Amino acid sequence: MVERIYNFSAGPAVLPEPVLEKAQASLMSLGDTGVGVCEHSHRGAAFTEVYDQAEANCRELAGIPDNYRVLFLQGGASSQFFMIPMNLLSKDQTADYLVTGAWAKKAIAEAKRFGTAHEACSSADRNFSYIPREVTYSPSPAYVHFTSNNTIYGTQFHTEPDCPDGSVLVCDASSDIFSGPIDVAKYGLIYAGAQKNLGPSGVTLVIIRDDLIETSNPDLPTMLRYQTHAEKQSMFNTPPTFGIYLMGEVFKWIQQQGGLSAMAEHNRAKADPLYQFLDESKLFNGAADSDSRSLMNVTFVTGDENLDAEFVKAASAAGMSGLKGHRSVGGMRASIYNAFPAKGVEALVALMKEFEAKHS
Amino acid sequence: MVERIYNFSAGPAVLPEPVLEKAQASLMSLGDTGVGVCEHSHRGAAFTEVYDQAEANCRELAGIPDNYRVLFLQGGASSQFFMIPMNLLSKDQTADYLVTGAWAKKAIAEAKRFGTAHEACSSADRNFSYIPREVTYSPSPAYVHFTSNNTIYGTQFHTEPDCPDGSVLVCDASSDIFSGPIDVAKYGLIYAGAQKNLGPSGVTLVIIRDDLIETSNPDLPTMLRYQTHAEKQSMFNTPPTFGIYLMGEVFKWIQQQGGLSAMAEHNRAKADPLYQFLDESKLFNGAADSDSRSLMNVTFVTGDENLDAEFVKAASAAGMSGLKGHRSVGGMRASIYNAFPAKGVEALVALMKEFEAKHS
Repeated sequence: MVERIYNFSAGPAVLPEPVLEKAQASLMSLGDTGVGVCEHSHRGAAFTEVYDQAEANCRELAGIPDNYRVLFLQGGASSQFFMIPMNLLSKDQTADYLVTGAWAKKAIAEAKRFGTAHEACSSADRNFSYIPREVTYSPSPAYVHFTSNNTIYGTQFHTEPDCPDGSVLVCDASSDIFSGPIDVAKYGLIYAGAQKNLGPSGVTLVIIRDDLIETSNPDLPTMLRYQTHAEKQSMFNTPPTFGIYLMGEVFKWIQQQGGLSAMAEHNRAKADPLYQFLDESKLFNGAADSDSRSLMNVTFVTGDENLDAEFVKAASAAGMSGLKGHRSVGGMRASIYNAFPAKGVEALVALMKEFEAKHS
Repeated sequence: MVERIYNFSAGPAVLPEPVLEKAQASLMSLGDTGVGVCEHSHRGAAFTEVYDQAEANCRELAGIPDNYRVLFLQGGASSQFFMIPMNLLSKDQTADYLVTGAWAKKAIAEAKRFGTAHEACSSADRNFSYIPREVTYSPSPAYVHFTSNNTIYGTQFHTEPDCPDGSVLVCDASSDIFSGPIDVAKYGLIYAGAQKNLGPSGVTLVIIRDDLIETSNPDLPTMLRYQTHAEKQSMFNTPPTFGIYLMGEVFKWIQQQGGLSAMAEHNRAKADPLYQFLDESKLFNGAADSDSRSLMNVTFVTGDENLDAEFVKAASAAGMSGLKGHRSVGGMRASIYNAFPAKGVEALVALMKEFEAKHS
């Protein structure tokens, strides 16, 4: 078997090895059914059990209240960018967007097709390197949308934004969902593409409060209404069965790690040594403001493009992939999601120290 | 390892075992990369190669002309039901639909939201048990839509419908794509959910002629325009990477079987003995008209619900799953897609003979 390397990819990203091992067996036969997980009818007993377990584990893990539905959709967060305003925003309404990065910009752009989209804050002035503290809400927004973690820039909201009472809070949690405890009751809708913390690409988790489903416009195409999917438990059409299976296994794995609180501790314990080294280093600098740092994506630069490239090359030679930063920030980005092993961060810090010694 | 059974599921459906074996290894490491296929960045070199190979193999397999794009989308055929009229039909235009089953009905229902949808023919009068020969087209339809194989009823178009010169032919080929040669140049757009003949659920193959992409309306949500996906080679957002990988492996497998002509021969050789037995049997009757029979889904009944149930039970005990017919037809349905083994059909016919002898 080929030895696995440390995969710092921003997404699709590393998955827990025990989950992958189980998936290997399930590809040929799901349990003792004699039929592989991708080959089972989505309406048969075997897959129904997979689905029900995935939903139940998700609910238990995050303590999702009964008045929320858990949906497994397709089309990624990019499809939620338009489905949310299409379902929740009318022409005469305003939705507020906290613009903290490229994904938030894409989200607000789609909202403008359906109603008024108000930029409640933006950190564009300093290339999205921080989470703004000053937010100016509109008088009565249909909802308030924020991106909890900004994969490209390495920034993260450490608490929900402080929005007016009664606001419908909508969160793109694609890159930090279930990295720690979440109080679902504070939200109207939470969505996340699976491919960072939850599973493979091609399945999107949507957690939506019942009352928001009911407002859905019947004139919309059937597949674009939350109500369609809620009424049919995501089985209106054939769902992405393998993605749901794998997500369910990841939920179980998180439970085995001790649940979301334990996950938060693990993630803190992984990120801390890296940020600590960045604070001490004379060569490497963190790209995000200290108070806005992400526990999922750690962005850093040397300030010299050639040196950055040399470091990425050295890391690759040492069995660490995916460290090249996004072109809009440059430098390096270490994505260390839930399933990323602590040893990989230790190896990275050791290499950074060695590299710094060599270049000082 | 658990022994695999004969899986007659209508979809998701049986996949080729050599493909599943390769996928098992790839889950942990794609080739010698040390990173699993679900964990690779969709923009990295390793997955780019997977993607390019999948597209190239698809083009070679079906002889797709250069003026067609091959897209790998999400949302299933059900999303194409609305995306097609959303992109290709305007309020003042008419699209013609050949209504040969439940999926065609769903497709025409979505089209009515965007323009005039004309029912050019229907076989609803006899529960969709045949392919109509009489079709009445509207004077100048924006496109003509048909469902090449009707999974539920076991009927199939054996040639393209004879529509007026210059018509833009649109085909939902979800349940018979690449089951035999296809002359892509006769079509404007061909689409297929993967989960019957091509791969796992969660990825949709769309083959679209260039000029139809260009007509796309810029006011649509970005994710709902064919142009968005065509311009970015299906990488505008994170595509369903595992599904694309598996589909690519299925394309290779079909090539290894001898390509689409060989596939057609294999499928004919599988279906013929079953239909022949149905024609001879005094107990079992084929549900579809002889001239409309599908090579993919063979529907049959005994005429006695209790006996049908008893047969399905006996088949299950003999290691054959997924034979229960759709509730709207009743009886049995044997789905014998490309990857379904000939031996499974032999076993089914043997069981039917035995069952008939016992009940005569």
